[in-house]
Amino acid sequence: MLVHKAAITAHNETHYAQHAKALAALKDRIADPERVIKLVQEFQVAIPSWALGTGGTRFGRFPGGGEPRSLEEKIEDVALLHRLNQGSGAISLHIPWDIPSNPKAIRELASSHGLRFDAVNSNTFQDQPGQAHSYKFGSLQHLNEQVRRQAIEHNMEVIRHGEALGSQALTVWLSDGSCFPGQLNFRKAFQRTLESLQEIYAALPKDWKMFVEYKAFEPNFYSMTVGDWGQSYLYASKLGPQAYTLVDLGHHLPNANIEQIVSLLLMEGKLAGFHFNDSKYGDDDLTVGSINPYQLFLIFNELVEGMDARGMNHAADLGWMIDASHNVKDPLEDLLQSVEAIRLAYAQALLVDQAALRQAQENNDVAAAQEILQEVYRTDLRPLVAEARLRSGGALRPLDLFREAGVRKALIAQRGYHAHTTGL
Amino acid sequence: MLVHKAAITAHNETHYAQHAKALAALKDRIADPERVIKLVQEFQVAIPSWALGTGGTRFGRFPGGGEPRSLEEKIEDVALLHRLNQGSGAISLHIPWDIPSNPKAIRELASSHGLRFDAVNSNTFQDQPGQAHSYKFGSLQHLNEQVRRQAIEHNMEVIRHGEALGSQALTVWLSDGSCFPGQLNFRKAFQRTLESLQEIYAALPKDWKMFVEYKAFEPNFYSMTVGDWGQSYLYASKLGPQAYTLVDLGHHLPNANIEQIVSLLLMEGKLAGFHFNDSKYGDDDLTVGSINPYQLFLIFNELVEGMDARGMNHAADLGWMIDASHNVKDPLEDLLQSVEAIRLAYAQALLVDQAALRQAQENNDVAAAQEILQEVYRTDLRPLVAEARLRSGGALRPLDLFREAGVRKALIAQRGYHAHTTGL
Amino acid sequence: MLVHKAAITAHNETHYAQHAKALAALKDRIADPERVIKLVQEFQVAIPSWALGTGGTRFGRFPGGGEPRSLEEKIEDVALLHRLNQGSGAISLHIPWDIPSNPKAIRELASSHGLRFDAVNSNTFQDQPGQAHSYKFGSLQHLNEQVRRQAIEHNMEVIRHGEALGSQALTVWLSDGSCFPGQLNFRKAFQRTLESLQEIYAALPKDWKMFVEYKAFEPNFYSMTVGDWGQSYLYASKLGPQAYTLVDLGHHLPNANIEQIVSLLLMEGKLAGFHFNDSKYGDDDLTVGSINPYQLFLIFNELVEGMDARGMNHAADLGWMIDASHNVKDPLEDLLQSVEAIRLAYAQALLVDQAALRQAQENNDVAAAQEILQEVYRTDLRPLVAEARLRSGGALRPLDLFREAGVRKALIAQRGYHAHTTGL
Amino acid sequence: MLVHKAAITAHNETHYAQHAKALAALKDRIADPERVIKLVQEFQVAIPSWALGTGGTRFGRFPGGGEPRSLEEKIEDVALLHRLNQGSGAISLHIPWDIPSNPKAIRELASSHGLRFDAVNSNTFQDQPGQAHSYKFGSLQHLNEQVRRQAIEHNMEVIRHGEALGSQALTVWLSDGSCFPGQLNFRKAFQRTLESLQEIYAALPKDWKMFVEYKAFEPNFYSMTVGDWGQSYLYASKLGPQAYTLVDLGHHLPNANIEQIVSLLLMEGKLAGFHFNDSKYGDDDLTVGSINPYQLFLIFNELVEGMDARGMNHAADLGWMIDASHNVKDPLEDLLQSVEAIRLAYAQALLVDQAALRQAQENNDVAAAQEILQEVYRTDLRPLVAEARLRSGGALRPLDLFREAGVRKALIAQRGYHAHTTGL
Repeated sequence: MLVHKAAITAHNETHYAQHAKALAALKDRIADPERVIKLVQEFQVAIPSWALGTGGTRFGRFPGGGEPRSLEEKIEDVALLHRLNQGSGAISLHIPWDIPSNPKAIRELASSHGLRFDAVNSNTFQDQPGQAHSYKFGSLQHLNEQVRRQAIEHNMEVIRHGEALGSQALTVWLSDGSCFPGQLNFRKAFQRTLESLQEIYAALPKDWKMFVEYKAFEPNFYSMTVGDWGQSYLYASKLGPQAYTLVDLGHHLPNANIEQIVSLLLMEGKLAGFHFNDSKYGDDDLTVGSINPYQLFLIFNELVEGMDARGMNHAADLGWMIDASHNVKDPLEDLLQSVEAIRLAYAQALLVDQAALRQAQENNDVAAAQEILQEVYRTDLRPLVAEARLRSGGALRPLDLFREAGVRKALIAQRGYHAHTTGL
Repeated sequence: MLVHKAAITAHNETHYAQHAKALAALKDRIADPERVIKLVQEFQVAIPSWALGTGGTRFGRFPGGGEPRSLEEKIEDVALLHRLNQGSGAISLHIPWDIPSNPKAIRELASSHGLRFDAVNSNTFQDQPGQAHSYKFGSLQHLNEQVRRQAIEHNMEVIRHGEALGSQALTVWLSDGSCFPGQLNFRKAFQRTLESLQEIYAALPKDWKMFVEYKAFEPNFYSMTVGDWGQSYLYASKLGPQAYTLVDLGHHLPNANIEQIVSLLLMEGKLAGFHFNDSKYGDDDLTVGSINPYQLFLIFNELVEGMDARGMNHAADLGWMIDASHNVKDPLEDLLQSVEAIRLAYAQALLVDQAALRQAQENNDVAAAQEILQEVYRTDLRPLVAEARLRSGGALRPLDLFREAGVRKALIAQRGYHAHTTGL
Repeated sequence: MLVHKAAITAHNETHYAQHAKALAALKDRIADPERVIKLVQEFQVAIPSWALGTGGTRFGRFPGGGEPRSLEEKIEDVALLHRLNQGSGAISLHIPWDIPSNPKAIRELASSHGLRFDAVNSNTFQDQPGQAHSYKFGSLQHLNEQVRRQAIEHNMEVIRHGEALGSQALTVWLSDGSCFPGQLNFRKAFQRTLESLQEIYAALPKDWKMFVEYKAFEPNFYSMTVGDWGQSYLYASKLGPQAYTLVDLGHHLPNANIEQIVSLLLMEGKLAGFHFNDSKYGDDDLTVGSINPYQLFLIFNELVEGMDARGMNHAADLGWMIDASHNVKDPLEDLLQSVEAIRLAYAQALLVDQAALRQAQENNDVAAAQEILQEVYRTDLRPLVAEARLRSGGALRPLDLFREAGVRKALIAQRGYHAHTTGL
Repeated sequence: MLVHKAAITAHNETHYAQHAKALAALKDRIADPERVIKLVQEFQVAIPSWALGTGGTRFGRFPGGGEPRSLEEKIEDVALLHRLNQGSGAISLHIPWDIPSNPKAIRELASSHGLRFDAVNSNTFQDQPGQAHSYKFGSLQHLNEQVRRQAIEHNMEVIRHGEALGSQALTVWLSDGSCFPGQLNFRKAFQRTLESLQEIYAALPKDWKMFVEYKAFEPNFYSMTVGDWGQSYLYASKLGPQAYTLVDLGHHLPNANIEQIVSLLLMEGKLAGFHFNDSKYGDDDLTVGSINPYQLFLIFNELVEGMDARGMNHAADLGWMIDASHNVKDPLEDLLQSVEAIRLAYAQALLVDQAALRQAQENNDVAAAQEILQEVYRTDLRPLVAEARLRSGGALRPLDLFREAGVRKALIAQRGYHAHTTGL
């Protein structure tokens, strides 16, 4: 096991004095820091199993080294992240890339690291070797009933794998759509997709949720059959109370106001949760908070206000997952940066002076509303997030420790330079 | 009256031979041309009263001359367009810019020209002189109950004006929204807006429809409270069966697939109709079909297929209106070009070989589907549209005749160069 | 005079202890804070005369009250801002909205407040009363030589006004372009515009610069004749060494990487400076840093690195101007927020560890490069900016003092609620 | 050989009567049809060797069958297209995917089919097996001199392969750029890239051109080192007279006015030519003319007008290449559709009444300018393009004949269903 408890303790001792000073200064300035620290401690972000290896584009992929060669090694990687930041206590699996041969053992392995299994993800955007029918022209939307049947059964199988692992949600992201005008009848494609989803929904355990993810474009470049939040909402509301809309931050048209979408989905009780990432052009799948961290804060501001208005539990009532592609960074470092950005935005949102904001809104005092948001955004809240890590047993500076401990080098030594990550 | 019947007859005689030849050649090539001609004859596009003068931007406005100085003159202008193209048989009024002092006389005037009154439009995006409360921070969304009350009552007044004129729909376009993060609580703004709309809806005559228009941005530049089709659909479905979603072609984020939205709204029975225009960047309000005429055709293709699937009457069951701004062209010429583009796209859509398209879709024959669409799009169907005009008493070449008849010059002579169009 | 020196002193005394504590803590953490404070003190942002009143859109304008009714009052407003933040020591005039009847007196008035005149702006996007030729179809691009002549002479007149006031740059923003395909021959429009600019350039005093501003769209919605940085660069390089490209942050297509453009223009020695604002959709002209403050920091990071590489003086060698529209906020408050955001981003950029960043770049250590940028961005540097204000005689919290002092109320009392801002 | 001359003759006989009738009717209506037919005959579009197999996305690839397994088979496929449409008389190779083992034999094979070799394309966006240095962090921009050296030498090798085949241009498309802020110093990346390009340029035979292609994003998602036409122009003008800017229609930010870019590059004598495709969202690489055929026409309108103004030879003086990805269509059918769309747009542009357009422009008669463009765009010019094919020995309806002749089935029989296309 890389980066033992003792290494974390030693690291924290080195940095404690500086941290304590910064924390004390911050605590003087803000209201109820203990509440923020506690909530950040509870706030866990699921790591997707497919993000542990180097990602790529249609033009190429440039693997790093030491990538996980099995589900067990993927769990080890997430466990390592979680040891470091105590904020990655869940893993989101992708079927068929991560089918556990021994679910009980896998579950125990994860549990031994303090990890649970978040939403399981089906895959009908690729053909698997030996598959009877191709998804070239879609899966749940397909005109051929046999293709739909195959895709429905695949989703049911994913649910069964998830049940065996203790997961409680199925994420359905469909690449279904069309590349050219005329290719699809949109209405019929919607209806076939809805019927397929209804069959899957019927197979959902009673304590499960179905997350219907939408995406504006790619890999289909003319239409997507679950193309925006409005369409996902239509499916979810027709399906029933266990179905929700999943928001991936990179799945929108240019300039979309995502925070407003989030607020309205919460209002309707139909927000599933998130696939976090950041982007500049499309579904770029960049590190969370690397392009527009203020937008991330604004989204969390809607989340905190909206969840509180419904009496929801921040940590438990929505799905919090990363979905990113690590093309030029070490995947594990990238994930540490993403989790830090998410928790920082969450801490910022927790400290927005909601009463003052409400007052400013009631007065149409737009300048004051901006000041209230920027006051907290400009304040350096990293000590609170670090303290949350510290109290949970994590490292004050996870990325620094990851590097000092020579993790990547060790992983390459263990697994080889050309380790092949399942699924990538 | 400009451009008498006799002038049209003379014009048509000049051009008849060439037209007849082209029409005959076309009839040889296509199925059931008579059906297309008849349907195009029936298909009328409402002219908005605010589009009869020169439009502008925040940077400036450069009026032409001879613009209508009164509601009566606006009706005269639409009547002239309708005489020429026999496809502009309706007018869409904007209140308070077009409040009729004598509704009965106005209705008779319009009727004498073969015009009816399409949807009436309320205006809560500007303050009118002497208005008690300002819409600076919204109208139906406003935090102040008195402002909402004023806006609700304005909409009710618009309904009453519409009733007096025989209109049967109210278009509510709200500029409500916010310019900065924090300015609005999205959820509460939605709820206040919904409650306001519910009051207006309750005042709707039983045979009326309410059209809820959405817009992605402008004049608010951070959020719009009816910002996309999903939001408009939420309002419309909560309001009830008389409420529908109105699609303005320029009110979307970049790259939106409008035809898919149209198809799904039709599927849900919630499509109100259109504000036609074209655009390259935002709500540019350019001449219909001047930037991407193929997209216009694709939208009509969804409309024809979707309306037929629901057994709807093409001409009567949806609202067909232009909403454009004529900044650099003669407004009347611009409108002639827009109506021509709309009817041409409609004719193209009517001639899509739906059976073959269905077949291609069922075979996932994407190349064939494209061929089927492009076959009709590339065919020159202008003779059918011209024939529809001819049979209804219009001109074979409306724009040519408008110019030959010296209409603008005559209008300037009558109304002056610096005529002030009400509302602009 | 509103907000006297004494009021500022009293305000600062109230807030000093808290400020001093925060500053001391910050100084412990960062390298050479004195250098940053000094550079921020020197860094002045010009206020455009047109931003002192309420802005609007084509849909409406909702004025506040107490707006400046004359050039003198505009100077008073900028002087007030400058007293408060000691960072607005320049004013950028717009001709013909701000033609000084007595330039000497105006210059002395500004000077008495510590203000200088930055770039003067010509206006050929509107017709002025009594103007011989209309700019409906462009100005410097116009096909009619007389229109071009009029526009050229207007620009020369602007230069003369600027000379009288001690300005040293002319900003040429052209709304020239086209709304429809076919309207313009792009090549000939470029060449006519170039020839017109060459005449203006020839009239430029030897110590002046010409700033050629580009814009992607609006008010023309098909093409703009100076549409992007590449086009502006073409003009500027053909004109000669006194011509430069001006970057307005809101004048780009969606998703543009503005910081890269800035870096390359600096590399070519052709960057004029900035019109600062922020935007989500188009040229929204929102408060600087209100939508994507990280991008603003990234731009300043390029500026600092690039200017240092060329040995440039940060404060003096480029033009720093705000260009925003205050539709829903008090214009003066909005400007205080903008200047604060600009100086904060500048301070952040000054503290980027350039040596470490260079090292990370040389190692292709992308994660480290991100950490280096985010380390400084996440640090709360407001105490440095406040200290810069304090040392220069400004207020620790300009916006708070503006409000406490009841400035707007006093302005309304002085100037009336319906004061008409020249030019708006 | 599939689809012999005799099959084409038989096909043409079947369709001749209908074609002749349509052609005759068209000839009656338009000026100088013979000129158009002749120019369309001469106008040849190069087929890229990588477009002959099924393309894909990062999410998956769904191959069809019968794809070419060697360079020889790729040439056979292009030869087949050319036999059918007589408009695909060139092939654009990609190195290292298409390195000819026997260049002389390959050249003779191509020549025997009437094909020439258009621009050769280098590839530094992927790592090849056994490659010494990785392009993970760029090629010509790379910080490591050895990586740049490798990439420079690769480009020189590509030139040598091109020389052996009779090619006369090198297309350099660089995926170089960055995925995150801070990763690159833009200025230094530009300068290193320029220096690398200068070395390659120095190795260019005297009668060769270098095409510098730009792209806004993908596979790098923060910056591209040749990101827009302005940057490409900078490189090309610093390199010298043999360097030009290549326009790929899908490589722009949303809403870009490509036709204006084309016009200005022609004006500067720096337009290399095109990579044709169509797109809705990004570099979607869809069939030419499948999304916005009017824009394609507008681009050709600028080309014809601009080339004529410079006395250029339409067919010979620019590079005309397709660059598309065939994910859901038969690649050969897709290419037939693309070539047809290109030639149709070219024919439309040839028939624009330039004198009338110039007149309308001189009068600022915007409505007339639109009419002039739409008059020709709405006219069905397919008979002219078909006649050009017929006269050159091609098929009246290439796609129909391709299907009737059972080409795909035959190719699958010859090459197998799981044929692996080199490079994909």
